[in-house]
Amino acid sequence: MNQDYIKSDLWSIIEEGFDVEQVKSSESLFSLGNGAMGQRANFEEEYSGETFQGSYIAGVYYPDKTRVGWWKNGYPEYFAKVLNAPNWIGVNVFIDEISLDLNTCKNVSNFRRELNMKEGWYQRSFQAELSNTIELKVNITRFLSLELDEVGAIKMELELMNSNAMVKLVPYLDSGITNEDSNWDDKFWNTTRVDSKSNRAYIEAHTMKTNFATCTFMHANAEFDGVSISPKLEKKTDTFIGLEFEKNVSKGERISLTKFGGYTVSRNHEASQLVDVANVVMDRATTMGYDALLEKQKEAWANIWKMSDITIEGDVKAQQGIRFNIFQLNQTYLGKDSRLNIGPKGFTGEKYGGSTYWDTEAYCLPFYMATKNQEVAWSLLEYRYNHLEKAIENAQKLGFTNGAALYPMVTMNGEECHNEWEITFEEIHRNGAISYAIFNYHRFTGDYSYIPKMGLEVLIGIARFWHQRVNFSQDKQKYVMLGITGPNEYENNVNNNWYTNYLAKWCIEYALEQLKIVDDQYPKDYDRVVSKTSLTSSETEDWAKVASNMYFPYSEKHEVFLQQDGFLDKDLIKVEDLDKSDRPINQKWSWDRILRSPYIKQADVLQGFYFFEDHFSKQSLEKHFDFYEPFTVHESSLSPCVHSIQAAKLGRMEQAYTFYLRTSRLDLDDYNKEVEEGLHITSMAGTWMSIVEGFGGMRVLNDMPHFTPQIPAQWKSYSFKVNFRNQIITVTISEKQASFEITGDKNLTIQVNDKPLVLTPGKSVQA
Amino acid sequence: MNQDYIKSDLWSIIEEGFDVEQVKSSESLFSLGNGAMGQRANFEEEYSGETFQGSYIAGVYYPDKTRVGWWKNGYPEYFAKVLNAPNWIGVNVFIDEISLDLNTCKNVSNFRRELNMKEGWYQRSFQAELSNTIELKVNITRFLSLELDEVGAIKMELELMNSNAMVKLVPYLDSGITNEDSNWDDKFWNTTRVDSKSNRAYIEAHTMKTNFATCTFMHANAEFDGVSISPKLEKKTDTFIGLEFEKNVSKGERISLTKFGGYTVSRNHEASQLVDVANVVMDRATTMGYDALLEKQKEAWANIWKMSDITIEGDVKAQQGIRFNIFQLNQTYLGKDSRLNIGPKGFTGEKYGGSTYWDTEAYCLPFYMATKNQEVAWSLLEYRYNHLEKAIENAQKLGFTNGAALYPMVTMNGEECHNEWEITFEEIHRNGAISYAIFNYHRFTGDYSYIPKMGLEVLIGIARFWHQRVNFSQDKQKYVMLGITGPNEYENNVNNNWYTNYLAKWCIEYALEQLKIVDDQYPKDYDRVVSKTSLTSSETEDWAKVASNMYFPYSEKHEVFLQQDGFLDKDLIKVEDLDKSDRPINQKWSWDRILRSPYIKQADVLQGFYFFEDHFSKQSLEKHFDFYEPFTVHESSLSPCVHSIQAAKLGRMEQAYTFYLRTSRLDLDDYNKEVEEGLHITSMAGTWMSIVEGFGGMRVLNDMPHFTPQIPAQWKSYSFKVNFRNQIITVTISEKQASFEITGDKNLTIQVNDKPLVLTPGKSVQA
Repeated sequence: MNQDYIKSDLWSIIEEGFDVEQVKSSESLFSLGNGAMGQRANFEEEYSGETFQGSYIAGVYYPDKTRVGWWKNGYPEYFAKVLNAPNWIGVNVFIDEISLDLNTCKNVSNFRRELNMKEGWYQRSFQAELSNTIELKVNITRFLSLELDEVGAIKMELELMNSNAMVKLVPYLDSGITNEDSNWDDKFWNTTRVDSKSNRAYIEAHTMKTNFATCTFMHANAEFDGVSISPKLEKKTDTFIGLEFEKNVSKGERISLTKFGGYTVSRNHEASQLVDVANVVMDRATTMGYDALLEKQKEAWANIWKMSDITIEGDVKAQQGIRFNIFQLNQTYLGKDSRLNIGPKGFTGEKYGGSTYWDTEAYCLPFYMATKNQEVAWSLLEYRYNHLEKAIENAQKLGFTNGAALYPMVTMNGEECHNEWEITFEEIHRNGAISYAIFNYHRFTGDYSYIPKMGLEVLIGIARFWHQRVNFSQDKQKYVMLGITGPNEYENNVNNNWYTNYLAKWCIEYALEQLKIVDDQYPKDYDRVVSKTSLTSSETEDWAKVASNMYFPYSEKHEVFLQQDGFLDKDLIKVEDLDKSDRPINQKWSWDRILRSPYIKQADVLQGFYFFEDHFSKQSLEKHFDFYEPFTVHESSLSPCVHSIQAAKLGRMEQAYTFYLRTSRLDLDDYNKEVEEGLHITSMAGTWMSIVEGFGGMRVLNDMPHFTPQIPAQWKSYSFKVNFRNQIITVTISEKQASFEITGDKNLTIQVNDKPLVLTPGKSVQA
Repeated sequence: MNQDYIKSDLWSIIEEGFDVEQVKSSESLFSLGNGAMGQRANFEEEYSGETFQGSYIAGVYYPDKTRVGWWKNGYPEYFAKVLNAPNWIGVNVFIDEISLDLNTCKNVSNFRRELNMKEGWYQRSFQAELSNTIELKVNITRFLSLELDEVGAIKMELELMNSNAMVKLVPYLDSGITNEDSNWDDKFWNTTRVDSKSNRAYIEAHTMKTNFATCTFMHANAEFDGVSISPKLEKKTDTFIGLEFEKNVSKGERISLTKFGGYTVSRNHEASQLVDVANVVMDRATTMGYDALLEKQKEAWANIWKMSDITIEGDVKAQQGIRFNIFQLNQTYLGKDSRLNIGPKGFTGEKYGGSTYWDTEAYCLPFYMATKNQEVAWSLLEYRYNHLEKAIENAQKLGFTNGAALYPMVTMNGEECHNEWEITFEEIHRNGAISYAIFNYHRFTGDYSYIPKMGLEVLIGIARFWHQRVNFSQDKQKYVMLGITGPNEYENNVNNNWYTNYLAKWCIEYALEQLKIVDDQYPKDYDRVVSKTSLTSSETEDWAKVASNMYFPYSEKHEVFLQQDGFLDKDLIKVEDLDKSDRPINQKWSWDRILRSPYIKQADVLQGFYFFEDHFSKQSLEKHFDFYEPFTVHESSLSPCVHSIQAAKLGRMEQAYTFYLRTSRLDLDDYNKEVEEGLHITSMAGTWMSIVEGFGGMRVLNDMPHFTPQIPAQWKSYSFKVNFRNQIITVTISEKQASFEITGDKNLTIQVNDKPLVLTPGKSVQA
């Protein structure tokens, strides 16, 4: 944890002072993204110190050959890596032939970074004294345009402070890049063309195997004293091209460079047209110009914040933290393209590979449903529909038949990308999250149309999977599910994980209900789906048998469902009674010791109580919370949010706030000393949930938003917005009262503390 | 399976006809070893086809950096690889400058290999037509000397059949070798000197990291018409040296080459003296000469067979199979060096790494106890005593304290060499096998001296481990053991594996008993050990509590102990009811499906009934056998022997014989299509047990050998020998009778079918 590293600010992330030890962490924290591409905050100029270079194009991946210690049957042979893409941000700077490199400067002062979240730009400024004693002032602003999402813009300004010198600026493109996490040091990119024309340059390269064709392009313009400098070709190799802008600059004078760069990709255009399209894109950018494009950027971010901002009064760090979370989620995914999803590191690192986890359905969907238009959530659902065939193939590889679908643990294109047997094959609760998201979407938006059109097929494939995955225990005379890893990954290969059993039963019942509804109300869709899936009534009868006779481990003594069979055999020492030197257990203990301990990595039974809150009484929630919370170590970034929401529901606001704090500044304060690898994007949605669903108590039940407003003692007030069926509800909660206001043109009845409240557009109502 | 590949023969392994597809398999089957070194049956001459090159020096290994897909806390950073050593067998052959290479010859005929197990040599002969149409006849004999165990000998004879030609023979040494299973393509060997002097050559090389210094040497002599040819240096590189013997040979004439080669190693000599020692060794070999050394070889093997042969009348394939097993065990380990052990592939391949598994204690020890002098078994026990400190360190790495010892799953030098969490950390029953071997040694040999001298410390370390590894279940009010993989590796991370729980209880009780005996009878040793281990009476009281209150899963309904908690929840379909296309499940099913199935890879509960036979009634054995056998797929080479012994005990000789067949020719008939990777050395001891303990029913109880002779219907008679406390008992069993004869100078009372029988030396007694 590093609390003083990032300055407190309501709207910006600010670092002051140059520290080589922090460069990689800052590269993560100051990352930029626009949904279509993104990049770590690598320096534009040369940097010879420790750095983790990363530039990523949404949906462009490489299936790296699997490398494991011991092969287990069923492992995928390849898995999709988030792929470091050609670098377009580079601008080498030479002052009298000495390269500007902060790692070798005699002195660096006034170093400052700012990521302005309100307006969506990143700025870095510093003064440097080079080895030739020339001092210069540098200011660089960069953004990835939301208006033209294939373009990023850089403005670099240099001023000589103590001497005249020959200044040479070399904006370049470089496809000679690698992935840090490559398994076999394969070549991931093949460069086919390196070219330039006046102020522009192009590198055409395609990925090996997946054959994504890309054109990395740039348009650079340098000005001195209001006059453009003519470029020369500086260097051209098989994978590099640089233009040169050279000028004699006097002490106190300034030179500036504007660079537009980015990618055109065969995912969106004809492969043969990529350079032409790149020219069109650059024409648009240069026609608008840097300043106009930046203005558009500010407008676009203003629009995003209008719908998704959360304000917190009285706690600057909390304010900064929640905005950072919301900002990063929006940088990662905007819902414009149903082929994309929300990677765990977004555009900020390589780690984990793949782009899609159950995090999307379980944690991110509520955020996107409430802060975007309905189409965004639809896109996320459609993504899984488009992967249904692959999920069926995935299940087939593991021995399932008859159209049973197992969605992968990690994926890029629908194929499984993970290779730990205890996760890949056994953490199958992920499948339930897909069905739950369909339910959740309908519950929140009221839009049923996804189910007859797409969702029903998904629900059938998933129900088939559960039906085949259980077996009948003669001993228990119940259906059991063996060999499971639940959400708590600190247990592997257990029997009857309650959460998974419960989810399986629910998935089957939900699928049966939807079959009935679609049969009644969308008979054409019903016929189409039944015919396509060859579903029979005897099959659904078999499903019903499983659902109605599922086994759930339960302790009469403790009056709680057991996380899995045998949980009570453990040595039940509470977390608080562990020696501090044992924490975090994932760093201090060998894996077997973790496994046989009672310690819970992230909510498991409680995750079920979160999903299916209305199936259980508050008393039962309290019993389960009090039983499991003392064993929960929250060593997953996805854990505290669920506990925070439940603590709030149980009226334990101090505890809820403590859990909230663990997530909201996880990356900013680098709790786990790993932010240099990238940000924890998906858990950021959990932070949002902690406020909206936890403190605000928002639920949608019976087509109506419900709230049970509370506020942490540390805050004066806070406010959030929810797009409920195209009306934006602004909820403002202070110690004394909660007020509600809606947009739109019709009244909306909500429930506040279980009492109805009628909202009229434009009028703030207190409760 | 490939039944016609190896010709049936009582004493030899014979292959006829050249098949490029079989080269790698034959390289395994015709492997040679002399306990100190060994090698696959690679061709001496060039071979450009598929080959798996392997030459191994006992005890010389390399700690390769671990490579896994996902790191788990506690994994060893390095693990010891069986190391491919410099090649000394090579002899390139050029006929008019064309290299003899069976892969590129126009024709190969009369190809024949013979491994003569009676005499310990390997011969290969063939006729080849080269691309220049010259035909030649080649005959090559090779053996690794038991007399001089640093030396091997090769005799190569060539005859030109259809033409005169210039024949060039190039015996060479080559240290430019690699391991097929290298993790990171590290350089394993560093060559420091390549040299030659007249007929001799030397390569000095040491292993990286472990720094084993070696001198690979050769002495070559070619003769034509009874006259030696003078050698020239043919080629010398940084890692290669070849001598050249050149002669114009006429059609019908013969040229021969004798080559002595081998290794001197810093494990046995001063590193600085290795070349000098090599010269001494070569002097001895050349002074004796090839023929005399071969005679010594035949004598040495005759002595081995005198004590260990099993004869089978009426079944040539069975005879060949059992002799192959006995032969390979003796090639692998002779018990001369307590730093060595019995690797699972011996000197026949790289696979698995490490040299020592629980196979040694559980399967190999009985063979070596019964067919060697007592010192050999002592050596195996001493090996583990020497590793006790490392076992304590290994346990510490996993969080155990106070001198608790966990012997590694796989090791070379006492450190753990394996990295699958479910095995490395959880298959801890291996620890019990170490204690059991101490008990077994005492039971068989009557020699108690190992226990006060060394064994007690081992027993204490192991008892401490079990005491710490269990925990008290408040729910069951018993001690339980969580997170276990039993001998049946088709279950991972289970709770209360009966075998492991039972073994743990027994280990503690046995340690407590021995503490009492040593205290009574060896007070000095007792004081030394108690002082060294800081053992207290309160500690042993705690052990006793665990042992007396251990939980054992049991089914009242089936009247059997359950393999682990929850076994009865499985879908209990018998193996015979599985579709054939599902077998073997380890090739056909994904890992999770195997895990949740009831199928048993190798005896688990039944392994316990084998170890602790006299703790259970025959009726109970029968119940457990009938319960578990139908679920056992025997996909481990170590499984059928235990079932065979138990089936024989239950009087089910047909079934016992079927199980026996599965092991005895496992490699010869290549049941699992993997013999090219090397032989299954340790399971070969199980085959021996199937005959001696199974069919012959041998046990040692109360210091007396017991036999319950039976014979498979397929055999006329069989006979085996047992060295019981320095008297060799020869047991011959036919359909009609069993006869017994002993060597030595005193009578011996044995039990046959529970009746005493007095044996007098030199007289055959029938029962």
